[in-house]
Amino acid sequence: MNILARTLKGFRDFLPEKQIPREQLIDKIKKTYQTFGFSPLETPVLEYADVLTGKYGDEGDKLMYKFRDNGDREVAMRYDLTIPLARVVAEYPELKKPFKRYQISPVWRAENTQKGRFREFYQCDADIIGSDSPLADAEILALSAQTMYDLGVRNFVVRVNSREIISAFYGGRLKLTLEKQLPIIRIVDKIDKIGADGIKKELITLGLKDSDADAVIVFSKTVIDSVDDLSKITELFPETKESLNKLYYIIAKAQELVPDANFKVDFSIARGLDYYTGMIFETNLNDLALFGSVLSGGRYDKLVGMFGKNDVSAVGASVGLDRLFSALEELKLVDTNKQTVAEVFVLNLGEELLPEYNLILRELRMAHIKTVFYFSSIDMKKQLAYASTLKIPFAVIFGENEKKEGIILVKDLNVETNSKTILDTKHLGKQEKIKMGELTSYILKMLDR
Amino acid sequence: MNILARTLKGFRDFLPEKQIPREQLIDKIKKTYQTFGFSPLETPVLEYADVLTGKYGDEGDKLMYKFRDNGDREVAMRYDLTIPLARVVAEYPELKKPFKRYQISPVWRAENTQKGRFREFYQCDADIIGSDSPLADAEILALSAQTMYDLGVRNFVVRVNSREIISAFYGGRLKLTLEKQLPIIRIVDKIDKIGADGIKKELITLGLKDSDADAVIVFSKTVIDSVDDLSKITELFPETKESLNKLYYIIAKAQELVPDANFKVDFSIARGLDYYTGMIFETNLNDLALFGSVLSGGRYDKLVGMFGKNDVSAVGASVGLDRLFSALEELKLVDTNKQTVAEVFVLNLGEELLPEYNLILRELRMAHIKTVFYFSSIDMKKQLAYASTLKIPFAVIFGENEKKEGIILVKDLNVETNSKTILDTKHLGKQEKIKMGELTSYILKMLDR
Repeated sequence: MNILARTLKGFRDFLPEKQIPREQLIDKIKKTYQTFGFSPLETPVLEYADVLTGKYGDEGDKLMYKFRDNGDREVAMRYDLTIPLARVVAEYPELKKPFKRYQISPVWRAENTQKGRFREFYQCDADIIGSDSPLADAEILALSAQTMYDLGVRNFVVRVNSREIISAFYGGRLKLTLEKQLPIIRIVDKIDKIGADGIKKELITLGLKDSDADAVIVFSKTVIDSVDDLSKITELFPETKESLNKLYYIIAKAQELVPDANFKVDFSIARGLDYYTGMIFETNLNDLALFGSVLSGGRYDKLVGMFGKNDVSAVGASVGLDRLFSALEELKLVDTNKQTVAEVFVLNLGEELLPEYNLILRELRMAHIKTVFYFSSIDMKKQLAYASTLKIPFAVIFGENEKKEGIILVKDLNVETNSKTILDTKHLGKQEKIKMGELTSYILKMLDR
Repeated sequence: MNILARTLKGFRDFLPEKQIPREQLIDKIKKTYQTFGFSPLETPVLEYADVLTGKYGDEGDKLMYKFRDNGDREVAMRYDLTIPLARVVAEYPELKKPFKRYQISPVWRAENTQKGRFREFYQCDADIIGSDSPLADAEILALSAQTMYDLGVRNFVVRVNSREIISAFYGGRLKLTLEKQLPIIRIVDKIDKIGADGIKKELITLGLKDSDADAVIVFSKTVIDSVDDLSKITELFPETKESLNKLYYIIAKAQELVPDANFKVDFSIARGLDYYTGMIFETNLNDLALFGSVLSGGRYDKLVGMFGKNDVSAVGASVGLDRLFSALEELKLVDTNKQTVAEVFVLNLGEELLPEYNLILRELRMAHIKTVFYFSSIDMKKQLAYASTLKIPFAVIFGENEKKEGIILVKDLNVETNSKTILDTKHLGKQEKIKMGELTSYILKMLDR
């Protein structure tokens, strides 16, 4: 019976001070996605293992949480939100296309926790299913940029490339088959982490000629900032002309939807996953250069077809919620200071006043003011210390004296939230006498509502 | 590579038409919980198996999803939200008490699906940790009633009992030890399902004397509607007097917080789980008598102590989201008719108008109007048929003629949402000519915002 209370490595509890801003972040992302007309979908945490395996490469299959259930079925926990979506699209052909859905859910990967990675983390995906129009690609880019803006991030870059450009270069220039291209793409994908030298070493190990490895690196270092550079690039890489023009069209249309956003063509963007077929992108915060991408995605037109049905065009974006949250924390764009959602604390100064307290609680809550009541009538200072530790902004005090006077005292506790000392009533912030019946409107005014 | 797209038995996909109202339901419950000052907590889906086992009875251990992870740890998927909360309270003793948290998350049980049960379902829990005051019990009852009201349910009953009353009866009257009481409690818990005769049969099988089994049934059929009946009840069951008075106090204080709610003392309420120690309750919808409880809970003061620390008082409520959703569906209190969140559909009448469309999209979305654009400029009728199938309320039409006139056409598609015929422009609903620049304010007005 004496079980140690502990959490698994790579798994986390989110106590209110983290979970309050985390839920606010999720709500904001959801709002942006909905504004673009994406609707919610939910899929199960468990899937038949064969639905998930073989789509993420060997690494993915190894990191997947797989087991036999009580009915001896081989099952696996969700590894991302894209394969379950592809499974849904294949399973319900009646879904009207284009089908625009979002899903914000946890996924599980048995990652090496020593690298600071987690085994349970959230993804926020938005995808357009059933349109091969470049306008769908443009919408996904615009949605991504708008998501960053709506979270208060200004200084970011959406780095865009396409698998078609990559294929044109590797196939057209280096004459490599698609099977030979994929291992190179996975190596180039690490350029931000291991640098050009690291890439070259791995390419040589893979069997590339020295001159081809050099060409790959020149190609991967190509970043195009403005339309003016385009002719220069197509001179350097003439084989990419057609696919580069297509990508430029996509970016131009995205730019019309989010004029201030910074979109860049960046040939180093490769995306590790095999399933991409067209436009691919990553989003970086300029103030946190080493942080990596917080929002990425691309077009994957062959994934639904893996379920034995016809191919269905698809393009999408995915926010890595936990990484984005850490980034916003560093940028001081989230508040991890609140230990409760409560806005008002009603002190308990005696059993005989309970009918009045309950009336006050009813009124405040009816006006959607988040209100807590202290359940025991212990010393007032201790009650105020509790409210102050939790950083509840306002305290409502109503004792026998206030009852006789027909008033309610409202104390502003905000001024003391940085103090660690036990509170003394005398040192508290502003204290106002409010007429009975005017409490709710006073608090609403103080809360700017 | 030819994998069949399918879902596991007992697991479900929630397509937008279900997931849209489901998320609305979750948001409403969350809002009520927050109004009472409960803050969000999130715990992992996976726990060490020994943290979860041995707390839900043999049945629970059998139905739990348990497996060995890649690191050879015995792990289990969350079976409810209460044990993980108890684990959190034991693991973080620094959490300020009373600690009021809510969690709305899925749990997993390998139930027999032939009984119409699901293996993945949501619970919405709100708990108060660290107060043994009856006012905490009262707040949980009030919260439960208020949750029902805020969801639009009026005709419900909160049936309240207490383990103390049950113990007083079984211990005081029938002289049974606590160990002998628990199997009886689990049998009595089924009274709504198998009736008094079924209960009696099982009690006799368990070894109860015929007269004792009869007494159990008389006791379990006792329902007290108003305070007036109390003396009569304490005459019949004098051993329950003290604990019944305490329960009456709790109900009286809950009633002050939610004056219109229908609270009843009902001695048949037993709750199957072993860990309850005080007040227990279930909530039933009067219009769906056979539906069972949609919201239940109680006091469990010994659970945190199972993690080798001191006991910590606790009382809470839990909504069975899926059952509640089905109930609200039957009561026509949820709308499962929408296939998209989109409010406005912008038709695509040609590539050359894209800059204007993108301007329109930007403006509407900036005003938080949920807007979709059709990615290809196919026949207008087909585009309208798409919008109408998805039941998008408004269509925005802007072609060369409108451009010349300097206006935008807004069609009200609502009138056609019940028609299954392919739409003809002539038969559509009201169509308004709106001046450029007035589109957003017009749509906001039409949407009542």
